[in-house]
Amino acid sequence: MSEKPSNEKILEMLRSEPTEYVSGEALCEALRVSRSAIWKHIESLRSLGYTIEAFPHRGYRLVGCPDKLLSEELMWNLKTELIGRQVLSYDMVASTNDVAYDLGKKGAREGTVVVSEGQTKGKGRLGRSWVSPKGKGIYFSILLRPILPPQSIPKLTLLAALSVARAIRQITNLTPQIRWPNDLLLNGKKVSGILTEMSAEQDRVHFVVVGIGVNVNTTAEFLPKEGTSLKIETGSFISRIPLAQSLLEAFDTLYRDFKEGKTDEALEECRKLSAILGTHVTVEQVHGKKEGYAVDIDSEGALLLRFDDGVTERILSGDLVKLR
Amino acid sequence: MSEKPSNEKILEMLRSEPTEYVSGEALCEALRVSRSAIWKHIESLRSLGYTIEAFPHRGYRLVGCPDKLLSEELMWNLKTELIGRQVLSYDMVASTNDVAYDLGKKGAREGTVVVSEGQTKGKGRLGRSWVSPKGKGIYFSILLRPILPPQSIPKLTLLAALSVARAIRQITNLTPQIRWPNDLLLNGKKVSGILTEMSAEQDRVHFVVVGIGVNVNTTAEFLPKEGTSLKIETGSFISRIPLAQSLLEAFDTLYRDFKEGKTDEALEECRKLSAILGTHVTVEQVHGKKEGYAVDIDSEGALLLRFDDGVTERILSGDLVKLR
Repeated sequence: MSEKPSNEKILEMLRSEPTEYVSGEALCEALRVSRSAIWKHIESLRSLGYTIEAFPHRGYRLVGCPDKLLSEELMWNLKTELIGRQVLSYDMVASTNDVAYDLGKKGAREGTVVVSEGQTKGKGRLGRSWVSPKGKGIYFSILLRPILPPQSIPKLTLLAALSVARAIRQITNLTPQIRWPNDLLLNGKKVSGILTEMSAEQDRVHFVVVGIGVNVNTTAEFLPKEGTSLKIETGSFISRIPLAQSLLEAFDTLYRDFKEGKTDEALEECRKLSAILGTHVTVEQVHGKKEGYAVDIDSEGALLLRFDDGVTERILSGDLVKLR
Repeated sequence: MSEKPSNEKILEMLRSEPTEYVSGEALCEALRVSRSAIWKHIESLRSLGYTIEAFPHRGYRLVGCPDKLLSEELMWNLKTELIGRQVLSYDMVASTNDVAYDLGKKGAREGTVVVSEGQTKGKGRLGRSWVSPKGKGIYFSILLRPILPPQSIPKLTLLAALSVARAIRQITNLTPQIRWPNDLLLNGKKVSGILTEMSAEQDRVHFVVVGIGVNVNTTAEFLPKEGTSLKIETGSFISRIPLAQSLLEAFDTLYRDFKEGKTDEALEECRKLSAILGTHVTVEQVHGKKEGYAVDIDSEGALLLRFDDGVTERILSGDLVKLR
């Protein structure tokens, strides 16, 4: 970790000269370290997956970047103000949400992103798992510190889902549907899910962890029956870095608007992308099941469900299944 | 910690013979340890504050118990089914809520109680502090694992407040008022407060920590202007152990009923003890202030506040101040 700033600086210099060589002297001067230190940094970058040519008397040239969600890659040219100004990338963790939660307890700053190539215990809602094969998907968690009561959090999950939808649309031209409150569907199959966790008291949230999983290049053998991936739907390999960056940028905008109370347009977009509004659904909650007509998503992101007797209830969470 | 079961066993045997001596042999046999081991246990009990007579050729006799909230004392004859079947007692911690929260993350069982003689950073709502001078009050935190969504938690805070009210009434004959949602008042001054914290996802709570602070023998120099203690109000020293036990027993009953959805009677008692129903109040929340008439507490423990324009709003938390 202590080498990271130097590695980033070297990458930055190499990237600034995509066709030319950057001399060892120039790197030494910029970093104020010895030739052998530069060599060590180059080796450490190579071990991360960067392809760096070394040409005697001319210097170094970056010819290939790894298809890995490294902090160096994610933060490179990332156009956000709040989200991802600090990124911790891992090769394998139990759960990025758990890592981010611990960071939250320890006071890490708002917008910190924890990303991992794979998860051994990827978490879904209600103790379910999220299959997280290494190198195939995007698995990350965003630490947030909104000054809000716990009941405002459902809207945040919906905005996270919207940011995934926007990013998928931007990168693949496919338009996913949002299955309220936290799933994204392509052709009726789940391509992404959100797990929002929080530490809170009654009056306000201490911090929130928004965990996002996207099946990017995941192949069918890893996926549950009702799951799909961008590769399956598009037939093409999708580079994860631009997708992850697009997602973080979309969320950055939505979250900053959310903090200022400006969510009307975003909610309208959620309604348009909704897979369930205007249909009959069952809602399974921790205490039982309800059946009704999905009327609307209200200004707080809650689902308005109308029962046969005409009574409408505000639903804050649950598993939704469409009825025929 | 490893000695604890032996210490408890010795205390139990000594307590079963309040006037007679218990021989060293009998203790050795019961615990299957040597005479010198028994002696070490007796010494460790004495260091905790127990007064134990040792009489040559006759044995040991318990003549005095410490006025300390030790797990041995709290659990002795505690009539609960769920709450306090595991008690961790400390001399000094930063915050019992923080200790209990960590235990919650690590999977400690429901009903675990963390108690401390004093707190260096006793926590109140919204980052406020709770003055916790050593040996003067009751400072404890109860770990709960209800299978419920986060929005059900406000009712739990109210039930915790009710259990404090019942315990104070039982021990002192004074009847405190409940200032919704989490304070107890005697003569309009704060004698106890509750801080409920939780770890949750949108659908359900992972665990809840109910922190309870009671000013028992706290003297005026420790208290804020609007605070009081049982000693100040009664003029007498109040033994903390029976009060703490009464509180845990009251909460045990209320919590088990809560889990079964039976809270109507408890809420009716809360309404009767309410310091604010039927009065005009201001409610300060994280985002601004409201003024209205406190109409009722609903079946979920929320406050119904009616504004001048006749509109009624459900309030889930906030700071209440009575208006004249």
